[in-house]
Parts: sequence; C-alpha cells; structure tokens
Amino acid sequence: MGLLLKEVYAAYDPDTGKTHRDTNIYIEDGSVIEVGEHLGASWKTDTVIECKRKIVLPGFVNAHTHLAMTLLRGYAEDLSLQAWLNTKIWPAEQRLDQHKVYVAARLAGLELLYSGVTAVADMYFFEDSVASAVTSLGLRILAAPAIFSSGFMGSSLKEAINTVGSIRENQLLKWALGPHSTYSCSKDTLEEVREAAEGRELRVHIHVGESRRSQVTAETIYGRREVEVLGDLGLLSQRLIAAHCVWTTKREIELLARGGANVVFCPVSNAKLAEGGVAPIPEMLGAGVNVCLGTDGPASNNSLSIHETMKFGSLILKNHRWDPTTLDAATSLRMATTNGYRALGFPAPGLKRGLAADFIAVPLTPSIHGHPAASIPNLVVYSSISVSDVVVNGEPILVDFHPVKIDEQKIVDEFQMATLDLDTHELSS
Amino acid sequence: MGLLLKEVYAAYDPDTGKTHRDTNIYIEDGSVIEVGEHLGASWKTDTVIECKRKIVLPGFVNAHTHLAMTLLRGYAEDLSLQAWLNTKIWPAEQRLDQHKVYVAARLAGLELLYSGVTAVADMYFFEDSVASAVTSLGLRILAAPAIFSSGFMGSSLKEAINTVGSIRENQLLKWALGPHSTYSCSKDTLEEVREAAEGRELRVHIHVGESRRSQVTAETIYGRREVEVLGDLGLLSQRLIAAHCVWTTKREIELLARGGANVVFCPVSNAKLAEGGVAPIPEMLGAGVNVCLGTDGPASNNSLSIHETMKFGSLILKNHRWDPTTLDAATSLRMATTNGYRALGFPAPGLKRGLAADFIAVPLTPSIHGHPAASIPNLVVYSSISVSDVVVNGEPILVDFHPVKIDEQKIVDEFQMATLDLDTHELSS
Repeated sequence: MGLLLKEVYAAYDPDTGKTHRDTNIYIEDGSVIEVGEHLGASWKTDTVIECKRKIVLPGFVNAHTHLAMTLLRGYAEDLSLQAWLNTKIWPAEQRLDQHKVYVAARLAGLELLYSGVTAVADMYFFEDSVASAVTSLGLRILAAPAIFSSGFMGSSLKEAINTVGSIRENQLLKWALGPHSTYSCSKDTLEEVREAAEGRELRVHIHVGESRRSQVTAETIYGRREVEVLGDLGLLSQRLIAAHCVWTTKREIELLARGGANVVFCPVSNAKLAEGGVAPIPEMLGAGVNVCLGTDGPASNNSLSIHETMKFGSLILKNHRWDPTTLDAATSLRMATTNGYRALGFPAPGLKRGLAADFIAVPLTPSIHGHPAASIPNLVVYSSISVSDVVVNGEPILVDFHPVKIDEQKIVDEFQMATLDLDTHELSS
Repeated sequence: MGLLLKEVYAAYDPDTGKTHRDTNIYIEDGSVIEVGEHLGASWKTDTVIECKRKIVLPGFVNAHTHLAMTLLRGYAEDLSLQAWLNTKIWPAEQRLDQHKVYVAARLAGLELLYSGVTAVADMYFFEDSVASAVTSLGLRILAAPAIFSSGFMGSSLKEAINTVGSIRENQLLKWALGPHSTYSCSKDTLEEVREAAEGRELRVHIHVGESRRSQVTAETIYGRREVEVLGDLGLLSQRLIAAHCVWTTKREIELLARGGANVVFCPVSNAKLAEGGVAPIPEMLGAGVNVCLGTDGPASNNSLSIHETMKFGSLILKNHRWDPTTLDAATSLRMATTNGYRALGFPAPGLKRGLAADFIAVPLTPSIHGHPAASIPNLVVYSSISVSDVVVNGEPILVDFHPVKIDEQKIVDEFQMATLDLDTHELSS
C-alpha cells in the first residue's frame, strides 16, 4: 500500500538544509513514513520509483499565477503595461468562457507537472473551472476567484462566494478570495472580503505594489500606501498572500512582517512588463516575511517554471545590488518549496515521518554534473534541470517523464480547439 | 543521400523574420537544397526526421564560454568575483590537465547538444582537447587557446600557436587566438597576437569591459579604455569577438561598430558575478554592432543554455530600462542564432538553397502552446522549450531526444572519474 522512492542518489530538505545521500523514502497515505539508508522490513510497497541517478526534493510551489492565460501566451509581447492591458489582454479576456478557461488551465497544469510544480496559487475568473482542471491532474491548488468592485471582468464578492461554495475543499483543493488589488476594489469590497475570509478561514490573494502607478492610485484613493491600506482594513495576517510587492517602502515591509503576511516574488513577470525596479526581497527576508515565488500568468512570463523563476530572481537581485552574495542558493530553494507550502496552507513536505509526500525527482543529466564538492542547492538552483517524476500527496502523477493519469494529447487537442474561436474573433475584429 | 525534415509545423528564419508553415526542408552535403510545401520528386532521402508537431529553426550559438569548467560547476557560488577567483577558481584550475579538460568538455558538449546549441566559441587552456571533445559530438567550435602574458595558467602566444597548429581546421573546427584581456596581456603580447591572427586569418576572442575594475586597470596601464586599447593596436575588425562589454562608453561602442567587431552579451554570468550594471545592448544594436549571446563558463552561470540566456538577457534589459519594448523577441532570436554564426565565421544557416543546414527542432510541448495569433519568436523566446532534434552541417546528431553518435553514459562516467582526483585534493588541502 506504499510508495517507495528507491536508492535516491541525494534527497535534499530545503527547510533543514540537510542532504541525505544514498537513501530511500517510504510513503503511505500521503505522508512520509521513513527515510533511511536501508529498506525497512515493514515497508509494503506497491509502487517503486527508481532514483539511483536522481536528486529528490520537495515539489516547487507557484504561488501567484493566472493559469488560464495560456490562451493569451505570446499574443501581446514587448509592449508597455497599459498598451498590453488596454489593447490586447482585456479585450481578449472578454471572449473567454467557462469551457475555454477549463481547457486552458488543464494545459497549464500539464506544464506545471512537467516543470516540477506540485502546488499552485491561482487567481482568475471562472475559478471553479481552474480548480477542477488542476486537481484533475493530481496537483494541489489554492484557488481564488478574482474580485473587482466594478464588475468589469472578474466576479463580485457575491459571485466569488458562490464559486467558493461550488466545489468542496479536499486534500488537493483549498479556496481563497482574490480581491484583485486595492485600486480595483473599493474599501467596502475589501472590508467585506475580510469578513468573508475570516468567517470561512480563507486565505486572501491580492496584487500589491506591482507598479509605481498602483501605489500612486492607492495614495490618491486612500491617502495611504497599498500595504498600509491592507493594514487599516485588518487584512495583514498569515492568511494574506501579497503578490509582487516591488514598490514597497521600509514601513510597508515592517507591516507585512508584523502581520505575518506572505509575499510572492514574481521577478520574471516584473522584468517583462518592466515597470522598473526589483522587489526588496533581502529586506523582506531580513524582516522575517515568508517570501515565496510565482511566475504570474503565461501572458507576462510566458513560462510557468518556478525553477526558472528561482534562478532569474536570484540573479536579478545580485545584479541589482552589485553583490553576488545576495540570495544564496539554499535560500532560493527554500523560497521555491517550503515557503510556498506555508503561504498556501498545504501540509509541509519534507524528509521526516509525518510530513507531506510532495516530491519531485531531478535526474543527473549532463547539465547538472559538477565539482564533487558542489552542494545540491548550488547544482539544482543554477543549472538547467529536468524533472522526471512528480509525487503529490503520496500519489505518483509523473513517472519517468510520463503523466500517469491523463491523456496528454486530448488536453492539447482541446486547448487548440478552444483557441480556434479566439482566432476567428481576432481576424474579424 | 539526403536528409529530410518532413512536414514541419513551422520553420522560422531569424534573419528574414519569415515563418514557413507546413513545409519540408531537404538537405544534402551539409546545405539546404529546397524548402517547400510539397515533397520534391528528385529528393533522395536516406534519413527522415518527422516534424509534424515541431518548430524548426537554426541552431543556437554560444559565442563565449569555457566549457571545461563543468569541472567547477557548483563549486564556488554566491561569492564576490575576487574571492571567487582567488580562493576557489584559480587554485582549482591548477589541478586540471589535458585529460580532465577533454572529459569535462565532452560533458559540456552533451549539454550543448541537448539545449540546441550547434556552434560554440570556447576559450581555455588545453584547447586542443576542447576542440577534439566538441567536434567528436558533431558540434561546431571556434576554439581559442587562452593567452596570458604572465604564463600564469593559460599558454603563452607561442604555446597557443602550437595548439592552433595541432589539429587541422575542418567544417566543424575553426581556430582563434584567445588573449585573455587587455589587463592580463601586455601590449607586446597583444601586438604579436594581432600579427599572428592577421597572418593566419584567425579570429581573436577576448574579454572586454567585464567589470569596472578591468576598465580601471586598462586606464592605469595604457591610459586608455579597453576598446580604445584594442583600437590602437589594430585589433578592432570583423575578426574580433569581444565578450561581455558591460562597462563600455558611447565612444567605445562607436569604435566597436566602426571596426565591425562582434560583441557577446553574457547576461547570466554578468548578473551572477554581479559586477553591476547591464551591458548597453540597445546602443550597440543601434550603432550596427553584431551582437550575439554567450553563457560564459559553467562556474559562473551554471548552464550552457542559450535559450535561457536569450530570455534572461531580454528581460534584464527591459527591467533595467523600465521599458518593455526593449529588445523584442525577433531580435533576441536573431542574436542567438544568425548573429552568432556571423561572429564565429561558420557558414550561415537558413531556409534558402545553399545555406548551411544547422537546424534544431522544438516540439510543441504544453509549455509552448499559446494564442493562435502568437508569432514563433514570441513563443520560442519567452516560453520553456525543449529540443528534440539537432542537425549540424546536414548531419543529425540528436534525434527524438537521443544523441545518435555517442555513448552518453561513457561520457558521464569518464567525467565522474576525472572529478575524483579533484575531490581528493580538495579534502586534503
């Protein structure tokens, strides 16, 4: 009844920084039972994944994205944020529907799977479709229906609450509320969100400090900076997931830390939309903020790879600070894994009895070999890697590069069918 | 006698910016014979690569690296440049030898192959070993023995000339001279390099403007900035490959452009070593400089992927300039491919009769699908891609993800044997 990760070359625990060489990991009912050099006599394995030439570590967490935007990938590039939104993204989003969002999120789920992302925090409209799509692949999702006061595209709070009630939470699915931002939600809406979230113990997933413009708008509306607004409204808690936080002040970082809020660093999207600057991650880590990583949506990245985000984020910070010691590899890997689990509220994975069995295996391809004294984080974070196996909640869902529970070609074909309609509108408009 | 890339979903030519949908590419004797929708009656194919669900484009060029530093990958991370060189890299390099460099470069060659790099410009000691290693995999190399005046580690000019005479040039191998930099080579050495290069029509591959320190040193020794020194010595020609050029002035860019020199943008290495700033690539492109891309060595990157470099370079520039229109995808892709071929002096690949058949195929994995109106560069540059097939000089060397002419496990095993010795020294020192 158990799953065995057998003869692991090296298993790495980002939380403790410890590497277990030549070990075995035995899993039952979604949890780790034992980690050890010798096979346990009581281990009753019905599934074995050979890991002789593989590194095993907790899965990556993509803590801020809009998965269904695979439909818009490559459609609007090398444009300024306003042109990007006004002339391309928003008009295109008007043409989406429940079905398109489902098939787009399924395609995204496949990409997550192949890149070793085991848990994701998504915010979008038709979020019930996104939740179904992602869990159907065996991945974990913290799903937040996007909320706007204007009702422009996202749902109202009422619609969001309906969505949240539409599918029961389970081990793969947790619900959150997704007020888009302080500038697109009124004070009343944000207050109602807080009440609803408190009542239901839901996380709140929101864009914060993505651009200078967003901060100026908050100052204009509220006379306060974005994080201060969240503080005033009682939203700064361990249940808050604040995406971006590029344009934040020392005072705002202090408030985020004091409230126990989670921050999602999205360096690739931030650089591509080029609103300038680099998020003050070292200051946040220094203040004790739980910082994790996100890709943002496929229209502004255009990859869902957290491995890429980890390397990109570390390097853009080093470059920005003129200091190569900024953000060492072990810290990056912790942000990409255990910090993400903490932010999303899923059980923490790790190499100890009782911890969640959300693991990935990274084969020792030519690109990952190096000096014998190289540490696992140094090799995994900065090298090109591939992911051969993915286990979520103790279930193998990618084995030897092949998804085991789904028909990949069907997902791709359905996605392409859905885009036909987008194309027709495009050509006729 | 020919090779057919059959039923290509889309073939993209970075030089013309043209996409050929649903086409076939027929190749003989290393060159393209015909590109067309219908199979030619006269095509005598003995090898067929099915490309129904693949994008085909010219191979990527890694125009500045030190391949054998795979031996030092992951060994010295998150350190300042001087600590990195003095306490780690240089002492370790003293323990390398001809054999170690060969097996390390073979491992690197495998990584290049898997990531779609078809031609590489390398600079190192024991460069004859590097040249043999890379050509043994069927890849093209412009090989430059590293030259230092002090004889510290690299060769003297005399030794370099010996190396250059050691293996005859062929379709896969071209020789260059690799004076390390203006600060580690004396004026006399650089003058001798110019004479030797002119006499033999060799390219000259050199580090330029990598740090503020390198420029200050040049000013101290020569009273001139690095590019000016090269100009004074008559080295600014189409045969010059200037790596980095981060810390260059408008005047230096003007000189590079006027001389017809090639510049290699190495954004990942520059960010990791964090000497600050971002190379003024838009100004160089504006002045007409032939800019291409490099990874630098695996100790400061630690990947040899030019695809990663292309995305990283574009995004760090956009972010640095606070302008998302900086460096569009089509330009990035041209820098990664045809500009690189031009810099290295290998025959240009492309989709026209007579052009070189150096192609890669990129399968339509879940990560590359997007909006139907998305252009090929938008999808290829910013998405996560994999490379399934590689053809160099008309020869298939990677087919359906498998190297066809080599024993991968042997290469990996030999690499690991070579590192044992490094490890022993490490532990005893």
